[in-house]
Amino acid sequence: MSFLQPGPLMGSMAYERAKPWAISQWLNTPNALTVQSLRGYVVVLHVFQMLCPGCVSHGIPQAKAIHAAFPPDKVKVIGLHSVFEHHDAMTPVALKAFAHEYRLSFPIGIDQPDPKNAIPVTMRDYGLEGTPTLILIDKSGYIRLQHFGQIDDLRVGAVLGQLLTEPMPE
Amino acid sequence: MSFLQPGPLMGSMAYERAKPWAISQWLNTPNALTVQSLRGYVVVLHVFQMLCPGCVSHGIPQAKAIHAAFPPDKVKVIGLHSVFEHHDAMTPVALKAFAHEYRLSFPIGIDQPDPKNAIPVTMRDYGLEGTPTLILIDKSGYIRLQHFGQIDDLRVGAVLGQLLTEPMPE
Amino acid sequence: MSFLQPGPLMGSMAYERAKPWAISQWLNTPNALTVQSLRGYVVVLHVFQMLCPGCVSHGIPQAKAIHAAFPPDKVKVIGLHSVFEHHDAMTPVALKAFAHEYRLSFPIGIDQPDPKNAIPVTMRDYGLEGTPTLILIDKSGYIRLQHFGQIDDLRVGAVLGQLLTEPMPE
Amino acid sequence: MSFLQPGPLMGSMAYERAKPWAISQWLNTPNALTVQSLRGYVVVLHVFQMLCPGCVSHGIPQAKAIHAAFPPDKVKVIGLHSVFEHHDAMTPVALKAFAHEYRLSFPIGIDQPDPKNAIPVTMRDYGLEGTPTLILIDKSGYIRLQHFGQIDDLRVGAVLGQLLTEPMPE
Repeated sequence: MSFLQPGPLMGSMAYERAKPWAISQWLNTPNALTVQSLRGYVVVLHVFQMLCPGCVSHGIPQAKAIHAAFPPDKVKVIGLHSVFEHHDAMTPVALKAFAHEYRLSFPIGIDQPDPKNAIPVTMRDYGLEGTPTLILIDKSGYIRLQHFGQIDDLRVGAVLGQLLTEPMPE
Repeated sequence: MSFLQPGPLMGSMAYERAKPWAISQWLNTPNALTVQSLRGYVVVLHVFQMLCPGCVSHGIPQAKAIHAAFPPDKVKVIGLHSVFEHHDAMTPVALKAFAHEYRLSFPIGIDQPDPKNAIPVTMRDYGLEGTPTLILIDKSGYIRLQHFGQIDDLRVGAVLGQLLTEPMPE
Repeated sequence: MSFLQPGPLMGSMAYERAKPWAISQWLNTPNALTVQSLRGYVVVLHVFQMLCPGCVSHGIPQAKAIHAAFPPDKVKVIGLHSVFEHHDAMTPVALKAFAHEYRLSFPIGIDQPDPKNAIPVTMRDYGLEGTPTLILIDKSGYIRLQHFGQIDDLRVGAVLGQLLTEPMPE
Repeated sequence: MSFLQPGPLMGSMAYERAKPWAISQWLNTPNALTVQSLRGYVVVLHVFQMLCPGCVSHGIPQAKAIHAAFPPDKVKVIGLHSVFEHHDAMTPVALKAFAHEYRLSFPIGIDQPDPKNAIPVTMRDYGLEGTPTLILIDKSGYIRLQHFGQIDDLRVGAVLGQLLTEPMPE
């Protein structure tokens, strides 16, 4: 758990800056979103694949619950669809049908495919191991939690509660 | 619940014969399956769509549990993928990826698309209301239960227990 | 699973007769119930202890679901409170409060304590290993299923479905 | 949700001080615990009754999960057994059996019975509506969350995360 660790404004520990996202297409938002444009928000980045059973049973319900529980002017929930297998099944049109059926209303970015590699660009840049992965980014753009697999709501809530208390970046 | 109703061999009630299935493609079986070829088995027909949340959360786990709990020489579990919406998302290649990810090992037939209608042929012939639908067919080829939506395991088990006690057709 | 086994009226296999129950007190019924008086019914005997976590999380909800799903003129659900530990906590007055709070409306018999033994009389006579235990007794008074621990609804339903199809005893 | 509200050290809002607890007996701790003695800890007070179904299905598992997830030198989880009904069933000896069976290892105080009233003393002093109730007390002894009924882990986690970031009282 990271909720007891000092933040970038509190002391000595060095967090990693969230790298830019490479997105080929956005759903549920008129404008492209960037790490930079979300400065000042606590960002919940939920990395998933629509045909990943663990995402459907755990990760997506958790992302929806966070989206419902926290004030949208403080916490931004964003889906990142990082397809690294079954590329011909998990197409943008299929993702749109999936988002409709599963009532996903938060913005979803499609991770930029890499023509030379099964792993899409953002997934590679972030060094992700698979899906679901939950990434929490603080108001200043630092990664404060990055978790592959299932993680319980108490722990996620605790980190969000901590990040919300931190001051706004200058 | 139908488990107290007399079967076709027990008396007065008239059951409907299961109509033939129109299948464009089979997964998980080298041979096409027909109602006729399954005479003598109790057949569990699980009608689903891969992007239907109720199918994923309830119907498919139930079909897998039936497949695991009952002897395969007595009970045949068969999936019927009846796509009536999002046709460009729920393609055969997408279904194959889905079946792989969700570890579906029972035979799955793709309901024959109707070029003039969103509803595929078998779904129309059976008069189905949507997905998930569970259909139980007795050893003689009669429909003994047809249920749209969620149905609990106790009730499904009770009908299967009854159907298994019935004599083989001559 | 026992649902494929022949019943006492069908052939060769010998089932054990359900032994009489030794009950010190009944709840939720004006009259004492006996194995003999329930001849002609399929009987679901749910053996539990009110402070047994597995009973509370699994066995009792299952007994309530059976009670709700099956017709009361065919299937009788009966609780048997077999206290073999914490005797000073699981008293009759405590059981009454428990039955009230958990909305148990089926008859519950308190297994006769044995002054010389922690194990009560019926539990000893049936050779039970612990709680929860589910016992299914057919219309003729034979034990057809006896299961200690968790058992899934599909299997329980299948046995009940089979037992319901059997003829009434003469 | 209270996680966005200023704490007592941050500004204008007035929180209520946690009143003293009236405890007739402690379990799982050699020493009596008091609000005063827990100064400097974030305190999770889980108010329950052993025969309350909502406590058993939701409140107690949540208290156990908090106890497992947070460091014991920062967060103290404490049970308060506030019996306001079925007094002859939920006795101290019954509570001990319950705590043993449900593997409750955090300290539990038995709310002091009031000979003139069904409601015990601490429950009355805190104005509680029933069980389960979750009360979160900050390091300085102020009540920051008091919730009757079910509350989800995300919200509880968020408040705990916030409270943990607050400075120690002087």
